[in-house]
Amino acid sequence: MDTQDLTRLLHVKNDSKIVMLVADGLGGLPVEPGGPTELEAANTPNLDALAKQGISGLSIPIKPGITPGSGPGHLGLFGYDPLKFMIGRGVLEATGIGFHVGPDDVAIRCNFCTLDASGNIADRRAGRIPTEASAPLAKMLGENVKIPGIELFVEPVKEHRFVVVFRAEGLGAAVDDTDPQKTGVPPLAPVAHDDASQRTAKIAQEFYNQAVKLLAQEPKANGLTMRGFAKKPDIPTYEEVYGVRAAAIAVYPMYKGLAKLVGMDVIGEPGTLEEEIDVLAQAWDSHDFFFVHFKYTDSRGEDGNFEAKVKMIEEFDAIVPRVMTLKPDVLIVTGDHSTPAALANHSWHPVPTLLAAKNCRTDACTTFGETAAIGGGLGQFEAIHLMPLALANAGRLEKFGA
Amino acid sequence: MDTQDLTRLLHVKNDSKIVMLVADGLGGLPVEPGGPTELEAANTPNLDALAKQGISGLSIPIKPGITPGSGPGHLGLFGYDPLKFMIGRGVLEATGIGFHVGPDDVAIRCNFCTLDASGNIADRRAGRIPTEASAPLAKMLGENVKIPGIELFVEPVKEHRFVVVFRAEGLGAAVDDTDPQKTGVPPLAPVAHDDASQRTAKIAQEFYNQAVKLLAQEPKANGLTMRGFAKKPDIPTYEEVYGVRAAAIAVYPMYKGLAKLVGMDVIGEPGTLEEEIDVLAQAWDSHDFFFVHFKYTDSRGEDGNFEAKVKMIEEFDAIVPRVMTLKPDVLIVTGDHSTPAALANHSWHPVPTLLAAKNCRTDACTTFGETAAIGGGLGQFEAIHLMPLALANAGRLEKFGA
Repeated sequence: MDTQDLTRLLHVKNDSKIVMLVADGLGGLPVEPGGPTELEAANTPNLDALAKQGISGLSIPIKPGITPGSGPGHLGLFGYDPLKFMIGRGVLEATGIGFHVGPDDVAIRCNFCTLDASGNIADRRAGRIPTEASAPLAKMLGENVKIPGIELFVEPVKEHRFVVVFRAEGLGAAVDDTDPQKTGVPPLAPVAHDDASQRTAKIAQEFYNQAVKLLAQEPKANGLTMRGFAKKPDIPTYEEVYGVRAAAIAVYPMYKGLAKLVGMDVIGEPGTLEEEIDVLAQAWDSHDFFFVHFKYTDSRGEDGNFEAKVKMIEEFDAIVPRVMTLKPDVLIVTGDHSTPAALANHSWHPVPTLLAAKNCRTDACTTFGETAAIGGGLGQFEAIHLMPLALANAGRLEKFGA
Repeated sequence: MDTQDLTRLLHVKNDSKIVMLVADGLGGLPVEPGGPTELEAANTPNLDALAKQGISGLSIPIKPGITPGSGPGHLGLFGYDPLKFMIGRGVLEATGIGFHVGPDDVAIRCNFCTLDASGNIADRRAGRIPTEASAPLAKMLGENVKIPGIELFVEPVKEHRFVVVFRAEGLGAAVDDTDPQKTGVPPLAPVAHDDASQRTAKIAQEFYNQAVKLLAQEPKANGLTMRGFAKKPDIPTYEEVYGVRAAAIAVYPMYKGLAKLVGMDVIGEPGTLEEEIDVLAQAWDSHDFFFVHFKYTDSRGEDGNFEAKVKMIEEFDAIVPRVMTLKPDVLIVTGDHSTPAALANHSWHPVPTLLAAKNCRTDACTTFGETAAIGGGLGQFEAIHLMPLALANAGRLEKFGA
């Protein structure tokens, strides 16, 4: 039994409301020895007040030392063991552009490439063709390639990248990449590794054959490679494992998609954090659990811009009072991983996390930050334990055993 | 998937250097309530400086409450789950005397015993025969016992103990001990529990038959018992799971042997800690990871000598500056378990541990000790997570998932 087996068994329903505010890449690092992290440098009166009344700690996204991508990072926060539920590249790419991958879908991440006269790859990224040129080509392929017995979707991504989805019952995804990872050779034929994937490989070959005919006159994007054949993992829903009607509020398609994978309702079309809180307020009565995603702490961290990340944290802090007026029974503030400006990248460092609820058993923390959280009452814990803690604090978990 | 599956998947190579200084049995206990532990009583300016610039915590060797032997203790530090990779007694004993156990070997820990006229055991330890008397007997057996189809090794250990190794393809090790654990009865016949071990049991019986004939005139050591039949566990190497060229620097055969089990190069023939650091400096360019073992903190703890252990810790502290002049990218200081002088034995207490690296995200610790480490940024963690943390801090792990 794992923790989700427990919550599946023990959850009960009530009128409580749980809000999980996720500041993407929240955790940071000092830029000089002894200096503050981004969160410690930021002026965060509202988060500090929450830390004072709540309980703090450090969340380990996956395992100590492991740096997560957005997919595993969010699965962990949602309480799904990221080492058990693996999201393949094709599905993640489709999810990232807001394509809802269904149970009968095989999703594939594709690149336009340039083929020379003898059919060998001359440029693996089709000269980094701009999106304005590549998107119509993807659309054209979706409209003109016809493969009997399946539904076909071709979705533009960015520059040379696009996504292909084959939809038909029983398709396997154990198919090797066709990208040879070098130039001067033709794309590989799709090779299947189990019976259910033989048909997928045939479909992929047929797609390729029709596509190169349709692209024959293109100067740059006259070929394509396929990578990361993947099916949606079999993930139980929030309703099943936690008994909550969950809503996801996010600006970026990737996070909407990840939330959809675990059965959350993706609500609203917010463009800013303020608008996300508008959506939250409007949906207050229709849902029990709210995942609210704030992207820009991560973006500025990835830019390597300490000061800009500090500003984003302050912007994030400023919406806390609006959330509090809704009177959530449990409020969690966390991140899916750290993105220290000093590294301009995701990192392995544990993420400052706080939980505020009536019976949370508070600690001595009076500010919200990496160093303070070391002494917090939540200690250091793997992110998958946050959801059970949220449910417990919301009175939504019964006793285990008599 | 476990953490080693992750590191196997995610590791990359670079020029970084990682040093793991292991003071055996480092953790301790106060001798009177409120008093300092050995580490806290010791004058350790260099370790304190490292604690100040690094991040501290408490390493749990196996699981809370579990006291490890040297084998599981070191496997844990090396990142190998000690509950998954079990080293049988025979292999551990052989490893401890520097015998390199190969994949076709069955190693057995043997005792000389005294048999009475009717073949019953009169003394299970052959009157604790001194090594000077027993070692030539072991050697004699190795030279004179002949068993067709196998290579045979008989290695003296200490007093009544010796090691026997059968080398032949396909031998199993599921054979019961022949030591009846009491006197007045004869040694048991070796009993096998699977097909591959039937042959091993026959070989063991043949070894016994020849040996008692050869020992017949011995007054004390005229018989023998066999225990802990074991094969080397199938352990992946450091190169496979971490992608590092690992070197082990140790004085005692046991620790060299444990390092060899995980594929480290055992380098040099140091006799003192100073000489170990000489070897470290000489090997700096040829390896990426260095395990440096210091034995005497454990030895003096096992003696129950608090003051002597304090002195050993100070000796250990004194070599830190020499290590630092090499400019390791990641320096870890830890122990494989605690050996409090107050208990004169290994114990279950978590082990003070520190990690110093450029981006380690330091904490408020300014000294290195058991009590200070409770408030450290590494928290309490199972020892197997140290290696992923080391690799992450060395920039040797890629992101997990996109």
